[in-house]
Amino acid sequence: MPASAIRKFVPLADAAKASGTKVYHLNVGAPDIKSPRCALDYVADKCRTLDHISYTNSLGFAELRTGLIEKYYRKIGIDLEPSEIMVEVAGSEAFAVAMQIAADKGDEIIVIEPYYTNYNTFAVLNGITLKAIHTDIKEGFKLSSIDEFEKVVTPKTKAVLISNPCNPSGKLFSKEEMLALGEFCKKHDLFLISDEVYREFCYTDEPHFSAMNIPGLEQNVILVDSVSKRYNLCGARIGCIASHNKDVMAAALKFGQSRLCPPVLGQYAAIGALDTPQEYFDEVKAEYIARRDCAIEMLNAMPGVFAPTPLGAFYTIAELPVDDAESFCRWMLTDFRLDGATTMTTPVASFYRTPDAGKHQVRIAYVLEVPELRKALTILAEGLKAYPGRTI
Amino acid sequence: MPASAIRKFVPLADAAKASGTKVYHLNVGAPDIKSPRCALDYVADKCRTLDHISYTNSLGFAELRTGLIEKYYRKIGIDLEPSEIMVEVAGSEAFAVAMQIAADKGDEIIVIEPYYTNYNTFAVLNGITLKAIHTDIKEGFKLSSIDEFEKVVTPKTKAVLISNPCNPSGKLFSKEEMLALGEFCKKHDLFLISDEVYREFCYTDEPHFSAMNIPGLEQNVILVDSVSKRYNLCGARIGCIASHNKDVMAAALKFGQSRLCPPVLGQYAAIGALDTPQEYFDEVKAEYIARRDCAIEMLNAMPGVFAPTPLGAFYTIAELPVDDAESFCRWMLTDFRLDGATTMTTPVASFYRTPDAGKHQVRIAYVLEVPELRKALTILAEGLKAYPGRTI
Repeated sequence: MPASAIRKFVPLADAAKASGTKVYHLNVGAPDIKSPRCALDYVADKCRTLDHISYTNSLGFAELRTGLIEKYYRKIGIDLEPSEIMVEVAGSEAFAVAMQIAADKGDEIIVIEPYYTNYNTFAVLNGITLKAIHTDIKEGFKLSSIDEFEKVVTPKTKAVLISNPCNPSGKLFSKEEMLALGEFCKKHDLFLISDEVYREFCYTDEPHFSAMNIPGLEQNVILVDSVSKRYNLCGARIGCIASHNKDVMAAALKFGQSRLCPPVLGQYAAIGALDTPQEYFDEVKAEYIARRDCAIEMLNAMPGVFAPTPLGAFYTIAELPVDDAESFCRWMLTDFRLDGATTMTTPVASFYRTPDAGKHQVRIAYVLEVPELRKALTILAEGLKAYPGRTI
Repeated sequence: MPASAIRKFVPLADAAKASGTKVYHLNVGAPDIKSPRCALDYVADKCRTLDHISYTNSLGFAELRTGLIEKYYRKIGIDLEPSEIMVEVAGSEAFAVAMQIAADKGDEIIVIEPYYTNYNTFAVLNGITLKAIHTDIKEGFKLSSIDEFEKVVTPKTKAVLISNPCNPSGKLFSKEEMLALGEFCKKHDLFLISDEVYREFCYTDEPHFSAMNIPGLEQNVILVDSVSKRYNLCGARIGCIASHNKDVMAAALKFGQSRLCPPVLGQYAAIGALDTPQEYFDEVKAEYIARRDCAIEMLNAMPGVFAPTPLGAFYTIAELPVDDAESFCRWMLTDFRLDGATTMTTPVASFYRTPDAGKHQVRIAYVLEVPELRKALTILAEGLKAYPGRTI
C-alpha cells in the first residue's frame, strides 16, 4: 500500500502546529468556502425529527438519486435514468469501484500525467498497471495527439481514466479533445472513466463538456462525481457513479452491497444541497477566479518559478527552482518560518509515471481567501530564497 | 466480485413491495431500535452552528478517538492510546482493511464457519484464501478443539478472523475459548482479527471478553468495532480499528489516507453517542432477550425446524425442512403471501465453506418488536407448510 503523496507530510504539519507555527495549507483541495446553508439545515431538520439512522439501500436513497437526475444532471444536459446512477462514498469510492469494474488484475488503464495520485493507489491495490500519456507543464499540460494514445494501447488496456477539469494540473479538456478521446475509446472498445468532480469549476466561456455526452460512447463511459467540491461538502463523503451500461451498474451494485450503504447523514446533506441557488455557484466561481489570478501572478513573479494558468478546478502546478520538490516541501514544514508561519504544498513527482518528470514541481491548491493566499505565497517565495537546495 | 448473499434478494423484496405486499425483514441486521437522542441532537446542533463540512484528519476527529478511549473502552476494560485507534467507514471498512494489512494476495486467513459472508467478499477481492473451521448447528456452534485449527494452518496462514459475538450464529466466545485461540495465534505468530461490533449484545452473566485483553497477544490483535449496532446508528457508517501494533496502525493510516477521511456527520453522531446513558443499553438488551426468546420458541415449535439459543448478537440460524434454503427464501418473496404479507430471511449456504453445510439453513435477524416478530415468524411457519420443496 503506497503512502499518500498528498497526506504523508501531515504528521510534520501537525508537529509544526504543536510547536506554535501557523501552517498555511495549499497542499490539499479542502476549500474554506461555506457549504450551502440548505444542505446543513436539511441535516439538522432530519436529525431533529428522525429517531433512527438506519441503513439505506446500497444504491443510496432513491430521493437522492432522482434528485440528482432531476435537479442537477438534467439542468446541465446529462440525461440519466434512476437505474443508471448509484450513490458512492464520495468520489474516492466511485473511481476505485469504476477502476475495478473496468479492469481485472494484470489489465492496464491509460491515464494522462500528471494525474490524481490516488488513481495509482487503487491501481496498485488491485494489480492494475497505469500507462501514462505525458503532458508538459511548459505547454500548459496540453493534451498530446491521439497518436500518443495509440502508442501505449495494448490488448490488456481496458480503460482511459481522466479527471476533467484535472486535479492536479487544472487542465480543462475541450469538447474537441473529448470527442477525439471518445473516438479512440470506441476504436479500441475501452471504458472511458471520467472523473468530473470539479465540473463546476471551469473558467472559460465554453460550458463543460461531459464524457456522458460523447455520441456513440454511451456503453463505454463511467461517470465519477462527488458533492465534495461542488457544494463544499468534502466531509460528507458522498459521490456517485453513473453509466448507461447496465453491466457496469450491476457490478457497481455488488461492490456497493459489500459496504452495505453510503453514509446516511451525508446523503441528507446531499439531498439538501440539491436546492442550492445558482448565485452560490456564481459567487464561488468568481472567488476562485480571483484566487487563481492572485496565485498565478504571484507564483510567476517568483524568480525561477513557472505556473501555467489553469482553466479549471482549483489547483495549479508550479515548477520550482529547487533540487527536489519533496525535500523542499518537507523543509518548509520542519525548518522554515516567516513570522511564525509556514506554507504546506504537495510535491507532485508521484503524480507522474515518467521518472523525474515532476521532481521540481509542487501542486498548489488555491483554497484560501486572497489575503490569506497572499500571505501563504509570500512565505513560499521567502522559503524559496532561503532553501539550501535552491538551484538559482 | 461475488454478489451479497444478504442483499441479493433486495430487488425481489422491492418488487413484492411494489405490488402491495408487506415484507417483514428478518434478513438483515438493521434494528428498528431508536438511536440515542444525544447522538442525533449532537449532529443537529453541529449543523446549526457550523458553516462548513470539510475533511477531517484521515484518522478521524481526535475528539472522537480520545472520546472512544476515555468514555467507552476504558469503562469496559480495554486500554488504548490515541495512536492505537483510527476511525473507519464503519465495521465494513475496518475488517476489510484489517484483512489487507494481515494478508497479502495468496495468503490464508482462518475463519470459523458459519462466518459473516462479507469476510469472503473481501477475501475474494484481495486474493486471500479463507480456511474454515466448521462448527455445527446441532452442537450450538460450539467451537472445535484447537486441534482443528492445527489441521488447517499452513505457512501461508497469516491471521484468524472471528466475529464475537458471532454474526450469523449468535455464538459467544468464552474467555477460555479466547485464551485458547490466543495461544494458537501466538504459537504460529498469526494476527487475531477480532470483530466485536456486537459486544453490547451478550446474554450471559459473564462480561464479554475482548481479544484486546488476551495476555501476551498485544502485537497480534487487530480490533474491529463499529457504532452501527452499539448505538443503532447503522447508517452513520462509523467504526474503528484498534491495535497496540504500531506497524498495523501505520498501515491502517495509509489505507485511510487513500479514502481521505471518514464521514464527518457520522463522526459527529458517534461523538454525541458517547454520552449515551447506561439505561439505554440495559433497555435495548432486555428488548433483545425478549425478542430472542420469542424467536427461538416459535422457530423450534415449527415442525422440522431447529434453532439453537444464541448467547450474543441479534441473529440465530435455523435449520429448515426444505430442499434448498435459497430457493425457499426466493419463493417466499415471489410466491408466498399471508394476509398480503411475507417474510424475508437470508439463506446461509454462502456463510460456510464446507459444501452443502448450510444448504437448509437461514439466518434470522430478530430485529423487530415482539408483536411484529410474531407476525413475521407466523408467516414463515405457514410458508414452510406451503412450500413445494418442503422435506417433511
